[in-house]
Amino acid sequence: MCKVNRRLKRQLDFSLEIDKEKNIFRQTHLSGHGRRENDAEHAWHMSVMAYLLREYANEEVDIARVMLMCLLHDVVEIDAGDTYAYDTEGLATQKEREDAAKDRIYSLLPEDQKQELIALFDEFEACETPEAKYAHAMDNLQPLLLNDSNGGGDWRDHAVTASQIYGRQSRTRLGSETLFEVTDAIIRRNIENGNIKNDIREVQPDEK
Amino acid sequence: MCKVNRRLKRQLDFSLEIDKEKNIFRQTHLSGHGRRENDAEHAWHMSVMAYLLREYANEEVDIARVMLMCLLHDVVEIDAGDTYAYDTEGLATQKEREDAAKDRIYSLLPEDQKQELIALFDEFEACETPEAKYAHAMDNLQPLLLNDSNGGGDWRDHAVTASQIYGRQSRTRLGSETLFEVTDAIIRRNIENGNIKNDIREVQPDEK
Repeated sequence: MCKVNRRLKRQLDFSLEIDKEKNIFRQTHLSGHGRRENDAEHAWHMSVMAYLLREYANEEVDIARVMLMCLLHDVVEIDAGDTYAYDTEGLATQKEREDAAKDRIYSLLPEDQKQELIALFDEFEACETPEAKYAHAMDNLQPLLLNDSNGGGDWRDHAVTASQIYGRQSRTRLGSETLFEVTDAIIRRNIENGNIKNDIREVQPDEK
Repeated sequence: MCKVNRRLKRQLDFSLEIDKEKNIFRQTHLSGHGRRENDAEHAWHMSVMAYLLREYANEEVDIARVMLMCLLHDVVEIDAGDTYAYDTEGLATQKEREDAAKDRIYSLLPEDQKQELIALFDEFEACETPEAKYAHAMDNLQPLLLNDSNGGGDWRDHAVTASQIYGRQSRTRLGSETLFEVTDAIIRRNIENGNIKNDIREVQPDEK
């Protein structure tokens, strides 16, 4: 690869490194009671959904930025592994593990792209901009759709409770009120069906 | 899902349908001599690479459009299956199979989005716009990088020849001269190493 300059070589090295994201498996199963989903597939799915459903974002979003955020938000898990949304112990060390991973992996890139993509990752994590809020709505809605299509098996396997799910899905509401309504309807149905343990007296609007 | 209107229901149905793309496996293997790659992973990888390498596109491109094109260019394979780049028999019936798939799958969406995404797919296939040419460069470069990282195993398994590869990679050059130089260097190295059968006297610039 003698003709390749140093900048391009770094970009190609990073491109090859992120291939490893396809080996990071999540707790969610594919529709049709399939195998567990990996991070690359999840990112792809979220990104397509972000584009298709952008009319429901609470605020106007730069959709290209949202899509890129969705595509790259889990790259750190190549080193840090997937932390299940309801794994309390894992969540306690998640930030430390992911910060180290972020530095190593993005350092493969040329400096300008490293800084740009770290900023994008941090923006997603902070969940303050319209783009980050909407991207988080996708991060929540995508596995919810899959899990619901499989009769809520992932919730049953992990004995997930209604209050845990509503805690997490509060971010969906920040990104899209409309998609939170869909989410709420799916959660209620799965509580009724016994797939989600009901640990709250009744699902009140102010608890959502 | 009583609160969901008909438009949103169609968008969610499509979102769930495309989950099946994760079960369509390609001939390319993941780096590190991993398993075969599926279409969703390939699309994710191409889309990220398109963003990172956009400075090398021959013409200025709308990168959001390129990314979306990359994300969705293989959705038809949910019905039509993957056609290996060097499978002559499969290639003969590919268009017919993919046209039927395109109509069925995109018809799940609301009419405006159906038309938009079919137009995007057709634009990719025609390979005439700057965006389509650059997206095709990614479609070629991404598996080439993986295959090269695995010592050219996929080329050896299928006894692929230099003229076949240069035939396919001519599209890379339409999208990016710089990335074609990288491609050319990788192909030459793999011919020298015996991973690609050399069926041309010598690789001349005018044959590329």
